[in-house]
Amino acid sequence: MSRRGRGPEDQRAARRAAKLSGSQPPWQPFRVDLPPLALLDDEQLDRIDGAAFRILEEAGLEFLNDQALDILERHGADVDRSTRLVRFDRGLIREYVAKAPSSFTLHARNPERHVTIGGNWVNFSTVSGPPNVSDMDRGRRPGDYQSQVEIIKLHQCFNTLHLSGGTPVAAIDLPAESRHLDFYRAQCVFTDRPWQPSAIGRDRIEDGLAMVALSRGVSREQLLREPSAMTVINTNSPRRVDQELVAGMIHMVENGQVSIITPFTLCGAMSPVTVAGALAQQSAEAFGVIALTQMVRAGAPVVFGGFTSNVDMKSGAPAFGTPEYVRGVIVGGQIARRWKLPYRSSNVCSSNTVDAQAAFESMMSLWATILSHANIVYHGTGWLEGGLVASFEKSVLDAEMIGAMRAWLGPMDVSEDALAVEAIKAVPPGGHFFGADHTMARYETAFHTSILADLRPYQTWVEDGSPDAMTRANRVWKALLAAYEAPPTDPATVEAIDAYVARRKEEIARAPS
Amino acid sequence: MSRRGRGPEDQRAARRAAKLSGSQPPWQPFRVDLPPLALLDDEQLDRIDGAAFRILEEAGLEFLNDQALDILERHGADVDRSTRLVRFDRGLIREYVAKAPSSFTLHARNPERHVTIGGNWVNFSTVSGPPNVSDMDRGRRPGDYQSQVEIIKLHQCFNTLHLSGGTPVAAIDLPAESRHLDFYRAQCVFTDRPWQPSAIGRDRIEDGLAMVALSRGVSREQLLREPSAMTVINTNSPRRVDQELVAGMIHMVENGQVSIITPFTLCGAMSPVTVAGALAQQSAEAFGVIALTQMVRAGAPVVFGGFTSNVDMKSGAPAFGTPEYVRGVIVGGQIARRWKLPYRSSNVCSSNTVDAQAAFESMMSLWATILSHANIVYHGTGWLEGGLVASFEKSVLDAEMIGAMRAWLGPMDVSEDALAVEAIKAVPPGGHFFGADHTMARYETAFHTSILADLRPYQTWVEDGSPDAMTRANRVWKALLAAYEAPPTDPATVEAIDAYVARRKEEIARAPS
Repeated sequence: MSRRGRGPEDQRAARRAAKLSGSQPPWQPFRVDLPPLALLDDEQLDRIDGAAFRILEEAGLEFLNDQALDILERHGADVDRSTRLVRFDRGLIREYVAKAPSSFTLHARNPERHVTIGGNWVNFSTVSGPPNVSDMDRGRRPGDYQSQVEIIKLHQCFNTLHLSGGTPVAAIDLPAESRHLDFYRAQCVFTDRPWQPSAIGRDRIEDGLAMVALSRGVSREQLLREPSAMTVINTNSPRRVDQELVAGMIHMVENGQVSIITPFTLCGAMSPVTVAGALAQQSAEAFGVIALTQMVRAGAPVVFGGFTSNVDMKSGAPAFGTPEYVRGVIVGGQIARRWKLPYRSSNVCSSNTVDAQAAFESMMSLWATILSHANIVYHGTGWLEGGLVASFEKSVLDAEMIGAMRAWLGPMDVSEDALAVEAIKAVPPGGHFFGADHTMARYETAFHTSILADLRPYQTWVEDGSPDAMTRANRVWKALLAAYEAPPTDPATVEAIDAYVARRKEEIARAPS
Repeated sequence: MSRRGRGPEDQRAARRAAKLSGSQPPWQPFRVDLPPLALLDDEQLDRIDGAAFRILEEAGLEFLNDQALDILERHGADVDRSTRLVRFDRGLIREYVAKAPSSFTLHARNPERHVTIGGNWVNFSTVSGPPNVSDMDRGRRPGDYQSQVEIIKLHQCFNTLHLSGGTPVAAIDLPAESRHLDFYRAQCVFTDRPWQPSAIGRDRIEDGLAMVALSRGVSREQLLREPSAMTVINTNSPRRVDQELVAGMIHMVENGQVSIITPFTLCGAMSPVTVAGALAQQSAEAFGVIALTQMVRAGAPVVFGGFTSNVDMKSGAPAFGTPEYVRGVIVGGQIARRWKLPYRSSNVCSSNTVDAQAAFESMMSLWATILSHANIVYHGTGWLEGGLVASFEKSVLDAEMIGAMRAWLGPMDVSEDALAVEAIKAVPPGGHFFGADHTMARYETAFHTSILADLRPYQTWVEDGSPDAMTRANRVWKALLAAYEAPPTDPATVEAIDAYVARRKEEIARAPS
């Protein structure tokens, strides 16, 4: 992984990496010009909205955070202090959700990596949240700091990705109270894309905002005007909104930063067994929390997050990339667009290994999210085993699949030159185009170049040891990591970040536990 | 594979098969109600049509079949007997292609298996044509009759499939001159779905038509009115049309049966390196041959076939399931719809094994073909290694993926009952829906049931030997084959088919070689 050696192995790896990096199209924003997929008509979507309103009006959401209760009450929600249940009139929901922007710019420390969150812009983020990490060399293991850094670096190598996400894997070898600082520093230094502080509590958010401002070299006042950090707020479905997450969210909102409100509505577990019911509940929970964000600060950037899937009714385990998941993604996108909210979805799978099931489930997710114009495709690369594992090999597979999707969705050349009538006339019947001038002038750039596919004849492949896609992905990530180069960083900025981290670690160490 | 034994192994397999079969939704036609994907606008499609016309007018197609030259000349095409080049005026092409029906019924021997070829009906067919066969137990090997029959039987077990296709694998252990008769008999007896005689020469087609008529119990006059057999006519791209295939096609057309006209336009090999150029050539070749079919018999059922992909420019090997392939599929569908022709595409992949690459490439194909309303998705199940291998495990993977696609595309319930507001109100915040009445009443049928996915927790999966999707697919096909039951057949029909086969084999044996 490091670049210590200079032996023939390393040289081969370096050449491979140069080839792989060279074969990726350059980083660029991604706009999907196809119309978004739609499964339901307006009348059917009205019914889901109506059910969401009834849930909010008749059942309400439980808010564990006192400050949230105060804000909600002050703005006209029906707050029951004894049960902490908050009921929202549909008019109140409409009024406050309408204040959220339909689109905004998310700022990176590298201005060339700013992206638009909204419209038909689709942004891919890295895996976030798994407790475990896995690769073929070191096996499946609890996350640690080295793996966390390696995944951040690897994903920085993928030109297909726009966002560097939240903790790709927990660093359990670091002290729990301060490991978020090490993670933030890694994001500030090893990647130049927007990333995600941990929303568990106000202090962790404050650290994140301070370090984002340092890494961008902007004041907190400028940060307030320029969304530059995002965080995911999961509700504790059904209908419960966490104490610490909301504390973090309110601090994000007050500072003009992005909250991605994502109910976790697994059909048959935390929501009804029917997809329509889960979506109604998803809307109810998302609308309630989004309304709160707009009560805190009208116009604050928020994202409507969908995470509706189903459980395996035999085991109760979550199932991802299923037909139910695809429906949840598509209809969730329809709902977000009706409400003029940016939309977040995910690239998910259940598989325990990087096999055909993993690819199948992730392709179900990717086609659905991309063709639904999900503005953030969370867990874009590396998510395995229903989110319990961040996988190095799955990261390569996902980058490959995202790259292929982006390639076919790009503009298609139908110029006279591309239509090639003269070239066709010049090749005799039954002939071939291999050496034709038209081919020779274009063949090097004519096709999308895969970073993973093996197109060699069977015998050649067998002689190479019959490497399957997972084995080849293992070679690819090692080659990419070996050639990783950190994006340019001002040394003074790194110094300021390091000083912040050191000071905060001292404060945390001194704090009464 | 056979049901000889009755030991505990067999009983376990039988139970597993019963569970798998029970978990498949029943066979049914498949209509895609989403609007078809579109990458190009009308002006761009006009340009492709225009290029196709120029190819037909200025370069022409070479026809190796004399009868075809006669027919084409008689109907106004510009035939050069010395070069065998036929040039078509665009008016002539428009006139004759317009005679082809936009939709027709394809008749099966089981009337419940009739399907519509046209509109937004999508029909999946089995793998056709590979010389080799593969499974994890017996390895990769040249095809033989036993494997051919097993694949036909296995695919009959998949409720997702509508068509039984052409030879799933060559039976090279049978005499070359008569092995088509054994294949036809297997199709007549082991499946109840429409299938595909070999179009190599008039005699093989005639045998196919005779046996289709026998299996359906209809006269040749009724067969003429009722399309019941299909065959694929590949052009020898670029711009060459084969002698024997056209002989077979003309006999199909004269007998009212279905020709699927499919140029094989690999960008950079048999067609220009640009997808637009390959599509122009695909249209030119398809339109020329489709015009011929309508000169033979106006109104004959034909299908516009697309098989545009690219080669790997490093090795010259064909590449499938690529971004270029997806574009070819989508734009091919747009062209077919403009010309009011049914459309054939394929589920393809390049991978050498049933790994993540195979699933990824096939999912690229399946999403593109299904959302393009391909009326026939050829090679729906079992195609591996760019078509060099028919794979038992890939068959299961494909059936799984097709099943999942069909599931999310089906109608979605947004009734009051499905919206489940009362059920949501009845579960307290932070609770769960596992034991809720609403869940209990629906959980057994609420979700699509996978035949392949492994959703068990990681540790359980490891204790079972960490079986990847390919290994599980191996278990699934053996269980399904062990429980295979032939569709009901009238013994007199089988007798008549056997008598026909015996008589023809004698004739062939007596014929001068």
